[in-house]
Amino acid sequence: MLDGFAVSTPILCAMHSERDAGWRPAFFVSSDSTITTGMHAADYIRLKRDGGHLTDAQWHDLIERYTRGDIPDYQMSAFLMAAFLNGMDDTEMVALTDAMLHSGIVLDLSDLPGRKVDKHSTGGVGDKVSIPLAPIVAACGVPVPMISGRGLGHTGGTLDKLESIPGFSTSLSIDAYRKQLGEIGLVMIGQTADIAPADRKLYALRDVTSTVEFVPFIAASILSKKLAEGIDALVLDVKFGSGAFMQAEKDARHLAETLVGVSDRFGKPAVALLTDMDQPLGCTVGNWPEVAESIALLHGDAPEGLTEVTLALAAEMIVAGGMAATNAEGVVRAEEAIRSGAALERFKAMVGAQGGDVSVVEDPERRTSKAIAADVHAPEDAKGFVARIDALAVGRAMITLGAGRRTKEDDVDPLAGCTLLKRQGDPVAPGDVIARVMASTEEHLEQAIAALRGAWSFSESSEQPASRVRDRFVDGAWERR
Amino acid sequence: MLDGFAVSTPILCAMHSERDAGWRPAFFVSSDSTITTGMHAADYIRLKRDGGHLTDAQWHDLIERYTRGDIPDYQMSAFLMAAFLNGMDDTEMVALTDAMLHSGIVLDLSDLPGRKVDKHSTGGVGDKVSIPLAPIVAACGVPVPMISGRGLGHTGGTLDKLESIPGFSTSLSIDAYRKQLGEIGLVMIGQTADIAPADRKLYALRDVTSTVEFVPFIAASILSKKLAEGIDALVLDVKFGSGAFMQAEKDARHLAETLVGVSDRFGKPAVALLTDMDQPLGCTVGNWPEVAESIALLHGDAPEGLTEVTLALAAEMIVAGGMAATNAEGVVRAEEAIRSGAALERFKAMVGAQGGDVSVVEDPERRTSKAIAADVHAPEDAKGFVARIDALAVGRAMITLGAGRRTKEDDVDPLAGCTLLKRQGDPVAPGDVIARVMASTEEHLEQAIAALRGAWSFSESSEQPASRVRDRFVDGAWERR
Repeated sequence: MLDGFAVSTPILCAMHSERDAGWRPAFFVSSDSTITTGMHAADYIRLKRDGGHLTDAQWHDLIERYTRGDIPDYQMSAFLMAAFLNGMDDTEMVALTDAMLHSGIVLDLSDLPGRKVDKHSTGGVGDKVSIPLAPIVAACGVPVPMISGRGLGHTGGTLDKLESIPGFSTSLSIDAYRKQLGEIGLVMIGQTADIAPADRKLYALRDVTSTVEFVPFIAASILSKKLAEGIDALVLDVKFGSGAFMQAEKDARHLAETLVGVSDRFGKPAVALLTDMDQPLGCTVGNWPEVAESIALLHGDAPEGLTEVTLALAAEMIVAGGMAATNAEGVVRAEEAIRSGAALERFKAMVGAQGGDVSVVEDPERRTSKAIAADVHAPEDAKGFVARIDALAVGRAMITLGAGRRTKEDDVDPLAGCTLLKRQGDPVAPGDVIARVMASTEEHLEQAIAALRGAWSFSESSEQPASRVRDRFVDGAWERR
Repeated sequence: MLDGFAVSTPILCAMHSERDAGWRPAFFVSSDSTITTGMHAADYIRLKRDGGHLTDAQWHDLIERYTRGDIPDYQMSAFLMAAFLNGMDDTEMVALTDAMLHSGIVLDLSDLPGRKVDKHSTGGVGDKVSIPLAPIVAACGVPVPMISGRGLGHTGGTLDKLESIPGFSTSLSIDAYRKQLGEIGLVMIGQTADIAPADRKLYALRDVTSTVEFVPFIAASILSKKLAEGIDALVLDVKFGSGAFMQAEKDARHLAETLVGVSDRFGKPAVALLTDMDQPLGCTVGNWPEVAESIALLHGDAPEGLTEVTLALAAEMIVAGGMAATNAEGVVRAEEAIRSGAALERFKAMVGAQGGDVSVVEDPERRTSKAIAADVHAPEDAKGFVARIDALAVGRAMITLGAGRRTKEDDVDPLAGCTLLKRQGDPVAPGDVIARVMASTEEHLEQAIAALRGAWSFSESSEQPASRVRDRFVDGAWERR
């Protein structure tokens, strides 16, 4: 699908200096077709509304002026809707990504040794993979500079999870970020105001104008941030199913192809794994509960699906970082980093460096026990075996509990969450404890228990979970795994 | 095209009281399809984005909350673009019109005698018809309560023209408007803050988001204001050609059908004339110059095309007001009102009542002579006869001169304008004076002369102008005129 690319990164970069020269005052009468850059915002809207394509210079002009505040939200939102409905071609998608990338600082980490590799996941219920993954990969000698986001809606966010470790700071200066990466090969922070500010503004606007679910916007948003981090390669975890942002596998495949294609265009080799997010990943959902499960994984003690996804992504990153020749070798190295305790040590070093309380990492139960807990019992129709736990239903129940956000302004309860005790294929009878719910207060506990219970469905026969990791997209083609 | 209407005015009005009862708090997860009214604004956007239709109650809710400021511009502009691109059905168009109409006060003039009739023109270069038309019709015994707009772009506005009469006020209170209509049967003012405030907000937003040229929005904008005036019937002048808002005849026909259909639905019988606006209407363009030409028409001394359009519209209004049985009789009555001086007297009464200087109406040359004037000479290729004067080119030249506005904030020069001395079919030779340009200052005179000269085209044979008034749409069908 990305064969049509005609613009290479150097050309895109060169365009920046041409922007001012190309700027012409716009006319009142907008039908003048000779104006091709520096148009009135209303003329960009009209162009997209009528099914036209913006040139690279026009995309840069539009995004630069919007970021600066010269184009107001009410014009940009009309433009976004016109693009959403009339589409964007591949050249436009690359131009938009480049414009957003260059709306802020683009880090250069080339003075630090090693090939820097990051992972991006499209998110899902119980997806805590970044937390054990990054220290595993770092322990294998691949520097991981990771910039993550917060949770919104039914999917959680790595920043919220890390901040459930008392004292842990995700707001580092760029200097501190670079220094820590050099010292321990691992740093996990939130997006700073300097990185892709256009994305921050655009995302907030898309969120309230129903223009989120559009692949060119999603790809430009993800990649403008990741390409600004100073990475050399990127591994993508693109999820589908009930608990994912994109529920249909077809849509997830299309997004994976797009992300890899655009990243490659910017000279950053990328590989995408397509993973199943129909049921929660791992046994825990919630901020601290997921950190505790991540620590367990670093002790070699985690549920199969979570371990499978983590090792698959670790192998990709270790290969991309040049520390293994094949994925099989990458898996061996990752397993060794867990077994030896090197990955856990790396995680503790990061927690310490970012101000977190290392003692709760050493003894997670000390923090887990601070929560109020309650059992969730299987309903009367719970006969035979667990058929499925609906990830979206679990995610929504966790919002009710305070573990997730309804709106960006909401606070999250760091201790709130759940442990799923009966999972797909497990035998079950009415009244069995199928889950435990935890929270800092009893306020929403009953409501969350009722909501959570509805996530289970049952069957008379036992079906074991399939592999979580499906196909792999790299070098323009899908590989069956 | 309007067969699909399912909603009558009484039902639409009844809906208002149900709105609050129907309001339900919206959920964070917006995919809940059971929410049909009182949704989050983002959900209305999504519904339209995905090709859906809003219910009557939803249109009212959306417009009411937008007018109140509870829905911000950046959400409304995305919604407008989604509707523009995905369309609206007839039921939605009626619901939008009704919602905009009821966003402010709806005048009731039923205590005043006579059937109140207004005219609306979609506007064009040199279209000063309202100014002589309203006093002609009023002089025939039909009360004319007229609320007009300002000029923007290449078409002028009745308010700007009337305000070129020193002292004339177009800002009357509703009480003064009603009182003047009762006393002299004629009042011409600008839109007040109380009338269709939703339209004022929406129009400003559409103007800067390239969502103007969409028939359902245009129809709702025009009719929400006209239906709020307290009229009993409406006559529409829908123009096409170079100098009109809609250049294609097909688009103008569609708009005429829509306007008549929606107006009929609200119980206000309407008729539309389709008129040719490819060349300027009359011999003058500009604010005071057009008032002077209007006064000349009231003396029985005006160019054929302008007189033809004015009499055709006057006849429709006189019939609609019950003061003639047929259009032919209406024309006779209108001509008699001019010949007798009754129409001019009515105009002078209105000017006096609205604070204007009646002496300039009595002696227009006193004011005309205050302007600086310059001749426009025919170019070297002016051989034979005038083939055409391009209305759009004239309109643009008049913006350059200061007679029109580039943006809503611009001031206009009341004296600026032009007189077209050589018109279609007239013999012409290089160097002939083809027009005169007038303005308060010399500042833009040379530039305007150069721009204006380009409006003429020439041919070796003389072709006389065709009739300006083409077809007539009434009772759901086109009649050839």
